[in-house]
Amino acid sequence: MADHPAPPPCKYLNLTYPLPFVAHVEINRPEKMNAFKQEMWQEFPPLFSHLSTSPSTRAIILSGAGPKAFTAGLDVQEASQDSPLSPNPSHSALDGARTATTLRRHIDAFQACITSIEKCEKPIVAAIHGWCLGLGIDISVCCDVRICAKDTRFSVKEVDIGLAADIGTLSRLPKVVRSGSWVKDVCLSARLFGAEEAEKVGFVSWVGSIGGKEEVVKEALRWAELVAGKSPVAVQGTKEILNWSWNRSVEDGLRYTGVWNSAMLQSEDTKEAMMSGISKKKPKFAKL
Amino acid sequence: MADHPAPPPCKYLNLTYPLPFVAHVEINRPEKMNAFKQEMWQEFPPLFSHLSTSPSTRAIILSGAGPKAFTAGLDVQEASQDSPLSPNPSHSALDGARTATTLRRHIDAFQACITSIEKCEKPIVAAIHGWCLGLGIDISVCCDVRICAKDTRFSVKEVDIGLAADIGTLSRLPKVVRSGSWVKDVCLSARLFGAEEAEKVGFVSWVGSIGGKEEVVKEALRWAELVAGKSPVAVQGTKEILNWSWNRSVEDGLRYTGVWNSAMLQSEDTKEAMMSGISKKKPKFAKL
Amino acid sequence: MADHPAPPPCKYLNLTYPLPFVAHVEINRPEKMNAFKQEMWQEFPPLFSHLSTSPSTRAIILSGAGPKAFTAGLDVQEASQDSPLSPNPSHSALDGARTATTLRRHIDAFQACITSIEKCEKPIVAAIHGWCLGLGIDISVCCDVRICAKDTRFSVKEVDIGLAADIGTLSRLPKVVRSGSWVKDVCLSARLFGAEEAEKVGFVSWVGSIGGKEEVVKEALRWAELVAGKSPVAVQGTKEILNWSWNRSVEDGLRYTGVWNSAMLQSEDTKEAMMSGISKKKPKFAKL
Amino acid sequence: MADHPAPPPCKYLNLTYPLPFVAHVEINRPEKMNAFKQEMWQEFPPLFSHLSTSPSTRAIILSGAGPKAFTAGLDVQEASQDSPLSPNPSHSALDGARTATTLRRHIDAFQACITSIEKCEKPIVAAIHGWCLGLGIDISVCCDVRICAKDTRFSVKEVDIGLAADIGTLSRLPKVVRSGSWVKDVCLSARLFGAEEAEKVGFVSWVGSIGGKEEVVKEALRWAELVAGKSPVAVQGTKEILNWSWNRSVEDGLRYTGVWNSAMLQSEDTKEAMMSGISKKKPKFAKL
Amino acid sequence: MADHPAPPPCKYLNLTYPLPFVAHVEINRPEKMNAFKQEMWQEFPPLFSHLSTSPSTRAIILSGAGPKAFTAGLDVQEASQDSPLSPNPSHSALDGARTATTLRRHIDAFQACITSIEKCEKPIVAAIHGWCLGLGIDISVCCDVRICAKDTRFSVKEVDIGLAADIGTLSRLPKVVRSGSWVKDVCLSARLFGAEEAEKVGFVSWVGSIGGKEEVVKEALRWAELVAGKSPVAVQGTKEILNWSWNRSVEDGLRYTGVWNSAMLQSEDTKEAMMSGISKKKPKFAKL
Amino acid sequence: MADHPAPPPCKYLNLTYPLPFVAHVEINRPEKMNAFKQEMWQEFPPLFSHLSTSPSTRAIILSGAGPKAFTAGLDVQEASQDSPLSPNPSHSALDGARTATTLRRHIDAFQACITSIEKCEKPIVAAIHGWCLGLGIDISVCCDVRICAKDTRFSVKEVDIGLAADIGTLSRLPKVVRSGSWVKDVCLSARLFGAEEAEKVGFVSWVGSIGGKEEVVKEALRWAELVAGKSPVAVQGTKEILNWSWNRSVEDGLRYTGVWNSAMLQSEDTKEAMMSGISKKKPKFAKL
Repeated sequence: MADHPAPPPCKYLNLTYPLPFVAHVEINRPEKMNAFKQEMWQEFPPLFSHLSTSPSTRAIILSGAGPKAFTAGLDVQEASQDSPLSPNPSHSALDGARTATTLRRHIDAFQACITSIEKCEKPIVAAIHGWCLGLGIDISVCCDVRICAKDTRFSVKEVDIGLAADIGTLSRLPKVVRSGSWVKDVCLSARLFGAEEAEKVGFVSWVGSIGGKEEVVKEALRWAELVAGKSPVAVQGTKEILNWSWNRSVEDGLRYTGVWNSAMLQSEDTKEAMMSGISKKKPKFAKL
Repeated sequence: MADHPAPPPCKYLNLTYPLPFVAHVEINRPEKMNAFKQEMWQEFPPLFSHLSTSPSTRAIILSGAGPKAFTAGLDVQEASQDSPLSPNPSHSALDGARTATTLRRHIDAFQACITSIEKCEKPIVAAIHGWCLGLGIDISVCCDVRICAKDTRFSVKEVDIGLAADIGTLSRLPKVVRSGSWVKDVCLSARLFGAEEAEKVGFVSWVGSIGGKEEVVKEALRWAELVAGKSPVAVQGTKEILNWSWNRSVEDGLRYTGVWNSAMLQSEDTKEAMMSGISKKKPKFAKL
Repeated sequence: MADHPAPPPCKYLNLTYPLPFVAHVEINRPEKMNAFKQEMWQEFPPLFSHLSTSPSTRAIILSGAGPKAFTAGLDVQEASQDSPLSPNPSHSALDGARTATTLRRHIDAFQACITSIEKCEKPIVAAIHGWCLGLGIDISVCCDVRICAKDTRFSVKEVDIGLAADIGTLSRLPKVVRSGSWVKDVCLSARLFGAEEAEKVGFVSWVGSIGGKEEVVKEALRWAELVAGKSPVAVQGTKEILNWSWNRSVEDGLRYTGVWNSAMLQSEDTKEAMMSGISKKKPKFAKL
Repeated sequence: MADHPAPPPCKYLNLTYPLPFVAHVEINRPEKMNAFKQEMWQEFPPLFSHLSTSPSTRAIILSGAGPKAFTAGLDVQEASQDSPLSPNPSHSALDGARTATTLRRHIDAFQACITSIEKCEKPIVAAIHGWCLGLGIDISVCCDVRICAKDTRFSVKEVDIGLAADIGTLSRLPKVVRSGSWVKDVCLSARLFGAEEAEKVGFVSWVGSIGGKEEVVKEALRWAELVAGKSPVAVQGTKEILNWSWNRSVEDGLRYTGVWNSAMLQSEDTKEAMMSGISKKKPKFAKL
Repeated sequence: MADHPAPPPCKYLNLTYPLPFVAHVEINRPEKMNAFKQEMWQEFPPLFSHLSTSPSTRAIILSGAGPKAFTAGLDVQEASQDSPLSPNPSHSALDGARTATTLRRHIDAFQACITSIEKCEKPIVAAIHGWCLGLGIDISVCCDVRICAKDTRFSVKEVDIGLAADIGTLSRLPKVVRSGSWVKDVCLSARLFGAEEAEKVGFVSWVGSIGGKEEVVKEALRWAELVAGKSPVAVQGTKEILNWSWNRSVEDGLRYTGVWNSAMLQSEDTKEAMMSGISKKKPKFAKL
Repeated sequence: MADHPAPPPCKYLNLTYPLPFVAHVEINRPEKMNAFKQEMWQEFPPLFSHLSTSPSTRAIILSGAGPKAFTAGLDVQEASQDSPLSPNPSHSALDGARTATTLRRHIDAFQACITSIEKCEKPIVAAIHGWCLGLGIDISVCCDVRICAKDTRFSVKEVDIGLAADIGTLSRLPKVVRSGSWVKDVCLSARLFGAEEAEKVGFVSWVGSIGGKEEVVKEALRWAELVAGKSPVAVQGTKEILNWSWNRSVEDGLRYTGVWNSAMLQSEDTKEAMMSGISKKKPKFAKL
């Protein structure tokens, strides 16, 4: 894929292109079960901003390196030493209001890093296996589609370390799973739940049958290839309109759709798609 | 039903009254699997506006004529010849902004036709069988209840013809099925899904056990008869309040409910309903 | 629990503390299947306001006394004799506008009583068994988590007495159950549904396996004990942020979370939780 | 202007084109001070829908015929004889709920007629003189710009006939005049206010200096001619974006603007406008 | 006015009825320039809840006792000794999160007391004179109409005591005054502004010409008498619809209006108002 | 001010500290009347992000260098050569949908640069003189307070170059000036308006009396010094709460205020402010 604009250098997010137009981002700190420290999550914005407009990217897979975990969440050890959560002599001089300001700015910045995944214009499928704890939930709810291996174990873990999840789970989970009772249960109790339960409540839309990471990544590749073969104008427009409409009124959704498509229907893709349908050939779409 | 105000004449939407107070609307172009051309969707507003206030109508069934399909969606052949999507010499003289204006006005008008189903004050059950593609999804999500035959095959088909669905599916589907992962999957991939899957995610609330159209229409009739036998003040108020509250805050929903019912509790229906309960007779309610 | 502020006296809501920090509220009029009259629902605001700030309460169970019902709903007999719904000679002198004002004020006050459950800062699990009709649905959707016995029978009963449910079901049910088709079905038809169906659509998140009230109350106790053992700062913050975010935009949810946690991360609980994790001891958290 | 699509026939709304691209709509029942009866307000939707897409219309003036009034409001005499407000023997058989339904449908239809003015895509200036009472306020707040003669007398008159203004004044006035104290004052007291006061609070943006209708219509013509001479893509986009943004968040406004202009910047008008600026010639823009 | 339900006893809010249907509430602690301590603001909810439904009250005047002030705001001396703001030994044992919880509950309760003024169903005119500082602004923006004496001096005083105004000014002031620049100026700088400036920006809608309290109370009486003479169905409906519509979309405002008036047009007041207009008699309306 | 974190290097935005805690940002391209090219507006985000958290900055003045203009707006000449608006051979190969995508991404990025001003946590006063056209309006409505010299001339200029203003004016102007008629007038007509008119409608809150830049900058300094002398916890909280509440419901504003202040009241500033008030000394507040 020689014509890619060069992606930003990343140490912990590994980018490959296993198939044309299909990017694979791997969270890559397997020796710590992909637990996150600050420099890791700060790699999301430049990478996903790049993918968002890269014409060679039409679908994205997000997975965790190594056999054990999508991610074990926040690296609590690290966080307790070098973060606003750590006991800090210089903080102790601050009054409660000033400490709060420091904390709020830290949370804002952290949230913005994870939100950069959600803002990517291209569809993202999270291929989840092993442990998916705490921050792993925050990250996966920013993806469009979630699928998981049979042996995945999830937990909205934050209450177990004495805090309310603040990087997005509590704002986004109720919008993608609407069993209110289940959402409240898992968020308040921090209990583990498995793949089968995750599928039953709609948190994931596919579960592997044999277990293990390979199977779920293979399914993610299949899905990404399917989507990457379609008109990028149609696919990216569909993602955008779904995201816009999600929590707005039907009226607002319809109007935005009309304005969006007033430009997007001026593409060549509709003709190409219809022609290909008739001629039974694979359509080829211009870059976007 | 001699006291019906005369319904508007329709060529493609067939209206009958199989039971007292139960209207049955059939999409009627079976030779084309009920595929839609412009004059067909333009029949929705006058018909559903009529049904909305017709005192002889208390529940509505919407189904597709013929054994093959609820509807195969947009008649693409027709659309490619005679619509804003067709290559039109007179359009080529317009700049991008003016073409966009023409397209937007066309989409607005198309959306308004389908929205007229949603605005009907009476409950509507969609009885779906066979193919339900593209526009079929847009239409069915405007209904209150969706049930389907065992062999129904659904697809949010639009990305396969190079465009984002713009007649309502993307705005309404996330509000009636709240597995975010599943909604994104089927909208981005345009893949087919069957009755069982539709029921599992909550898109439909009943699936036939033997397959075929007769069974689902029979169930729709049973449901419609049940609802038509209840107080129209109660039923229509319930629909209105649910629709209003759906995407508003609980506070706004509660307040609207209070104001609505401050008038609606001044009906005779509560007394009639309670009396009938005691005397074990079927209640009779005045028209609405 | 000697250090409780004294709870308000209640005649129909029975308060006990079966476990430390776990309050059990029982709707207590078993001879009438816990059917509600006005003085019963007026007990909710003082009691749940008390529990909301009581430092000795960290989780709440709500159930119905007696073997037959969570609650059979509104005591219609009572309501028909002594309420704005009853034929009242002094009302007959009022015009329609003035009658509406009387009714609206009555509904406002009734709604406010039930909403007081939702406003409680502590998590509430509804342990439901037997009949759960009408007002029982209004009440249970104000709770955070709903679990039920195998033999529970539910109904959004109101249309059967000639009115649209106006105490909260129609505003809250679409927010906690993810199938639009199912919500419309049960609200418009008032049909009964059982525990299995309630779980399938996500209305409840756990169903007993043997039937009977004891099993569901036992499970509620287990859940409440689990939650009561965690940091109250974390648990109550999680409930608050989930409630705030539920129907707001993700952006608004994230911002509120950041501001909330800028104060809440200044607790000792995080340290206590982490220490306990390391030392494998049960953490002890200060009151809240 | 031979290329106009033919406007719908109107009896009470008089349409002329005093200048190229400038439409003048006159409320035309001067013998009754332009007081409104039902067939008059029913003429708004077809006429303003026509003007909204008529390529020969770029700015619209709305005024009242005759020297005495913009409009004296609802023709109360007519309304008391032939409307849902009139004592109607056939109504007396209805219970309070059914009467309310009839009234609500009537108000909905009435509101929709007046809202059709607001929905027109072209800018509208209301040129107001003489009496502007009740419905006159409802109508004028649907226009973009309001100017008035020196001797205009306004009143939100409805409370004086025993009802709350229900055709739009109470929803729209607080959005165009943001002295809350003044809005509440004039709506609750129904007192008269003059041109000077209307300008001071921002209800109108220009007041004539000599009094009389001619002056205000002349100023409206001047304004309309100015606006009609500019790019219709720019002018109509400006109106649309202002209307969309008015009561939405800044974020939603910015996003909608970006999507709107992604199509609209593909016009030839920018080049034409810039060239004309350089060459000091009057620009000529294609139709829209 | 013998038929008043007895108002709740108040020590600092003095209630009189200077005219039929016109209530006058006086903030009554003139020896401290009506500065507020906790027991004073706790008198608002029971009193305004009483007035809200009292059939003998149709308009309310709110003013300050004594010649010097509407109110000098929070009694800071008192607050520094006996409130969550005061240095409290028992607080010092709490961590930052628990202190925040105590403070938030205190602010919630304080806000609810002042909001009770806004929730009153009857129109309220604030007659302001002398000093109107801090809490005086919070209170006056909850009233419908604000008028003031020539020598009134206002200040959004809170930043001068080191805090952001938290009892409502910052949420309500931008909704009642139309200049964003001015609102930010006075809130950020805490500077004094006088009656003339308050009128210019629309904060008040009438200013006395001679100065002194008598004149402004007299004008308030005149206004209240005028409003109290009109149909209470019309007046209270107008207030309700304005409040609802204020920050909602026009569509939501119109719909609510239609539902509200579907009940309210079933009053006798319209006929009474029209008859009186014809017969030139003062109309008499039934209680509400 | 040796303890400043080093500000980012800027070529066109000149940063000085004329007074302690008071930053002065000057748009600095006087030879082109401060007209903007892309590299200029790209300097806003790093600079205002720096100022937002710089503890040595408590108030900010924004003005234009040179005697002639705040800014003449977009440098149209530059834009016509090197921007998405310029005729670009490489663009001509793109279809309408792909051109729209390029344009939308450009507008998004441009908007984000200007929005960075609004997001700054510190109060900003725009000191405007001379020409303030097009982008000058977009920029000034992102500031908190606007003041201007007597001879300032403003115009929402965009329609004159054939486009709807898309960098924020149309979304923000209706929120800071609420004469709807005036806003529509100046946006649709692009006419010039002067200082006096700007003050009358509330767009600016102060106008110089003698004309010229010096006077308005001097007034800005006076205002900034006043605000910079107050508690930064109070000032920045006031700005934050005003911004949050501006277009949200009163309920949402009140709740956010309570949560915000639950942390912010834990500052030392309240005590310091009160002590200083008593001792008549200038208070000293810790950094923020």
